[in-house]
Amino acid sequence: MIRPQFKIDFQPAGSRIDVAAETTLLAAAQLVGVDIKAICGGIGICGGCRVRLVHGTLTEAGVDEAAELGPESLAAGYRLACQTRASSDVRVEVPPDSLTASQRLQLEAEQTGVELDPMVRAFDIELEAASLDDVRSDATRVREALARVDAGDVSFGASVLARLPGLLREEHWNLRIAVAERRAPSAERRAVSILPRHSRLLGFAADIGTTKVAMYLMDLATGETLGALGAINPQIGCGEDVISRLAWADHTENGARTLQQRIIDTLSDGITELCGRQGLHPDQVVDAVVVGNTAMHHFFAGLPTTQLGVAPYTPVVTDALSIPARDLGLPLAPDADVHLPPNIAGFVGADHVAMLLATDAHLVTGTVLALDIGTNTEMSLMHGGRIVSCSCPSGPAFEGAHLTAGMRAAQGAVEAVRITGNKLLVRTIDGRPAVGICGSGILDAVAEMLSAGMLDERGNILKSHPLTQDGTLVLAPAPHDGSRREIAVHRRDVMEIQLAKATIQSGIATLLSHADLSPEAIETVVIAGAFGSYLDIRSAIRIGMFPKLPQERFRQVGNAAGAGARQMLLSHGRRRIAGEIARRAEYLELSTQPEFTKRYLKALWL
Amino acid sequence: MIRPQFKIDFQPAGSRIDVAAETTLLAAAQLVGVDIKAICGGIGICGGCRVRLVHGTLTEAGVDEAAELGPESLAAGYRLACQTRASSDVRVEVPPDSLTASQRLQLEAEQTGVELDPMVRAFDIELEAASLDDVRSDATRVREALARVDAGDVSFGASVLARLPGLLREEHWNLRIAVAERRAPSAERRAVSILPRHSRLLGFAADIGTTKVAMYLMDLATGETLGALGAINPQIGCGEDVISRLAWADHTENGARTLQQRIIDTLSDGITELCGRQGLHPDQVVDAVVVGNTAMHHFFAGLPTTQLGVAPYTPVVTDALSIPARDLGLPLAPDADVHLPPNIAGFVGADHVAMLLATDAHLVTGTVLALDIGTNTEMSLMHGGRIVSCSCPSGPAFEGAHLTAGMRAAQGAVEAVRITGNKLLVRTIDGRPAVGICGSGILDAVAEMLSAGMLDERGNILKSHPLTQDGTLVLAPAPHDGSRREIAVHRRDVMEIQLAKATIQSGIATLLSHADLSPEAIETVVIAGAFGSYLDIRSAIRIGMFPKLPQERFRQVGNAAGAGARQMLLSHGRRRIAGEIARRAEYLELSTQPEFTKRYLKALWL
Repeated sequence: MIRPQFKIDFQPAGSRIDVAAETTLLAAAQLVGVDIKAICGGIGICGGCRVRLVHGTLTEAGVDEAAELGPESLAAGYRLACQTRASSDVRVEVPPDSLTASQRLQLEAEQTGVELDPMVRAFDIELEAASLDDVRSDATRVREALARVDAGDVSFGASVLARLPGLLREEHWNLRIAVAERRAPSAERRAVSILPRHSRLLGFAADIGTTKVAMYLMDLATGETLGALGAINPQIGCGEDVISRLAWADHTENGARTLQQRIIDTLSDGITELCGRQGLHPDQVVDAVVVGNTAMHHFFAGLPTTQLGVAPYTPVVTDALSIPARDLGLPLAPDADVHLPPNIAGFVGADHVAMLLATDAHLVTGTVLALDIGTNTEMSLMHGGRIVSCSCPSGPAFEGAHLTAGMRAAQGAVEAVRITGNKLLVRTIDGRPAVGICGSGILDAVAEMLSAGMLDERGNILKSHPLTQDGTLVLAPAPHDGSRREIAVHRRDVMEIQLAKATIQSGIATLLSHADLSPEAIETVVIAGAFGSYLDIRSAIRIGMFPKLPQERFRQVGNAAGAGARQMLLSHGRRRIAGEIARRAEYLELSTQPEFTKRYLKALWL
Repeated sequence: MIRPQFKIDFQPAGSRIDVAAETTLLAAAQLVGVDIKAICGGIGICGGCRVRLVHGTLTEAGVDEAAELGPESLAAGYRLACQTRASSDVRVEVPPDSLTASQRLQLEAEQTGVELDPMVRAFDIELEAASLDDVRSDATRVREALARVDAGDVSFGASVLARLPGLLREEHWNLRIAVAERRAPSAERRAVSILPRHSRLLGFAADIGTTKVAMYLMDLATGETLGALGAINPQIGCGEDVISRLAWADHTENGARTLQQRIIDTLSDGITELCGRQGLHPDQVVDAVVVGNTAMHHFFAGLPTTQLGVAPYTPVVTDALSIPARDLGLPLAPDADVHLPPNIAGFVGADHVAMLLATDAHLVTGTVLALDIGTNTEMSLMHGGRIVSCSCPSGPAFEGAHLTAGMRAAQGAVEAVRITGNKLLVRTIDGRPAVGICGSGILDAVAEMLSAGMLDERGNILKSHPLTQDGTLVLAPAPHDGSRREIAVHRRDVMEIQLAKATIQSGIATLLSHADLSPEAIETVVIAGAFGSYLDIRSAIRIGMFPKLPQERFRQVGNAAGAGARQMLLSHGRRRIAGEIARRAEYLELSTQPEFTKRYLKALWL
């Protein structure tokens, strides 16, 4: 029996694919690279994956799907891509709202000075051509020349040797050899790349966030950042937060492999793009450092994640890992390694270590709280020479997800809100007409509503306030031409912020209690991450997310994880320190702390 | 424009393929895995690739092809596959004679005692299960347990880690870890495989000859050979000797890649077969040693060979090389390395080093000549503590190629010939009816013909001798039913043997002259290789190939290269000694020796 196949045509992308009848439109879109939102991981409850039927027939909508969409949308041809399959060849339109769009990404960060001491260095050699009187092999000839320029005893792997005879003769026996040095326990040196003379040696650093990926191309000789690039993590179509993505990997055939390939494709494209912009060759990229939370780390490295998604959330590995770039399929120099710095625990990853490194956590003598706020928020309390770290599932609300009019921090997102008396002031990114509300905007809105007496302590929107309408606060009305939707704050949006802030608030409180400290003891609060650098500290304090401390104790440091990754690329010493930080950090599992649930429930109040 | 394509159907294999009109039948056969002989590398002069048209039409035969085939064969539908293309869909029959058949292979060899000291050892560990009170990563848990059983500080690569969490839980936290130890310069230890308790650790050794491949499965704990397997080197369809194969690689698109894939497929099948026979799992194969001549080494390792085929015949590398098995695509343990011992020069490879190792060349104090006779013959003269090595392109005549009725040493091959007066005695392999003549048979035949006064010193067959007919010596007439061809020695067969023996004879003479020695100074002649162990020493002396020495000075040691490879698998010390032998060996380039050509021309005489 031949299984029926249908052609799906996604508009306006124009991407087409033939799929089996049992394939959902969402799965088809993922196969063909159309990045439809699937915040809930494809279980039909987030409504993010709306598409509109243009031509052909689809399977009938179920009760739940019909309820999620409402009769009008359903009548207009809208469907949830995750719940729908084709019953003929079809053409569907993917509205811009349903796409994981490009957005503002946090690439820069406070940079501390780092002594240049890269793992890979360049050695220039000039050789005598081979002849019948001197029949040494190419590798022997190069190895002996390297010893003469004090490069030590260098070994060559097959992937480097494969390029040696060609380039040696093309370049008339003059070469630059990139040599990697492994420090303790061994002092082994190996050739990583073979290049024409005067080629610059480059490094690649990446911070893989659950939502966003930041990539950097570095000059290893000068420490200069030659280029930076942001991208959406393309795994997002397979679940918007870590838990739903782990579940997707577990329940989908080749799920983990698909997730790995998606992030590797993104990094590969990034490397090609960053090199291409500068007219540089990927063979010059002789070293790489990639950080991410533990789940991103495992997906990227091709490690199993099943055991990471269930208690006791055991990572496969926390030690630093080096993986040959060719094993991953990354277009770097032939024998380049990708360095994955250590993780701390199943939900405190190498990105947090990199952040701690970038903020010189190992030098802290006072009391410092460091947070990286994201879909998952990792935090560390440093006090009396100890580093205690924990993880809070704060959810994607601050990334703009799970909100009625939520969006990521892209053009047209409401990013700041002020209420003065009965006056409402709204600022959008780039001053464009409001098309949604992002993390810093909703945080501001809730804080201002609270100050304006518009909310009760449970988060209910009081109808009595003159600015509210039907229990909502409209930040931007829909224009008359119907070209945009109304942007408003609803009760459930306030609830999402209550849930998120309660998680962070109770995490901080538990860390402090574990160290037997009062909030006032914190001398510095380091806030990293994209949302963390745009949020209004006063708003965060007002809703109780951050402790009431003088504003000058807060430091918003930007993408410190990316900065830490770049430091580890430039300096062997920084890698060593990252290892020390990871070893010193003690992991505190919040769910086993007796007071945590009580604190959390209390923190839900505004 | 659509390029015309035709379907080629090879019988009796039943293999079919669609190819472009410009594809030769030989190329089509190679694409579809039908192993047609191409002794000359597909240039239309060896006649090995005869096929018969059954159905359809072919391109016209050229003058040379018609001459090679003769009018009768041509009329009967025979064609040379390398010179012929389809001009419609066709069916062709491949006669058994045109296939690279299965044959007698030399797997055993004199084995010297080797102290067991493998590079990979087994450590058994028993762990506590992970819990919320003990959230160490799986790798940390295993690493700490390994330290407790004195395995040292073991590192884990991503490919091993990928299997860790699954097996750890399946095996209830009891595992056997295979740990590889790198000796000097570093003492790094790394996990190569993760296995259920009590799994045997295995090693794989292979000797890749130009014509034949010998493979062995070893128990690393006992040193026992668990299984051995011989196969034809499937690259043979792309050129029967090293030079024609190097040319094929150079002139064929993806040629080198095709050759690499063919030999890797053969080794992969061998590993699977050897493990399957014993109910063992490839994950248990934690180490491998592969030897071959320098060209086979380069093809296998994926190294460029262009510069190897032209003077000064520079190899890419002569040092020992370790390649991760997964880079090669060999089904071994996840982080197993394949060890390639050192080469000596472009035409004296690791197989010769392995042979010297197996014969304890490093211990030789007297004067020893060691030869490995094959399509290329490598020889070393040991004298006064020196090892001087050279290479002679002796050609495939001793493999049965380039002879009128030549075949490899398989069932029905004439392997020995005696002439007593007017009586001719012929022995075939397994006593089967004669279907061809192999190396030891033609060597015997020429030596006996010479003794019987049937040949002049130029190699002409004298018509005056009663046993000869029309200037040939018929060893076995064709039966009346026409089911087999006549097996006879022609003038050109004698010439092939003259060429081969002259090369070896003049090589030996040049080595002796270089060391200022007379032949009588040689105390032992070690003869390795398949042909070398079956040849009749007296015949070889009689035609001048070997020096006139008492027969007890000759030692026929079998596949010493395979034996040396197995020693290196079982013992780190033997690997070290192989390195010393390769470093000590001085390469003598025969073509630069002033007397070589003169000696060669003289040696052509019988």
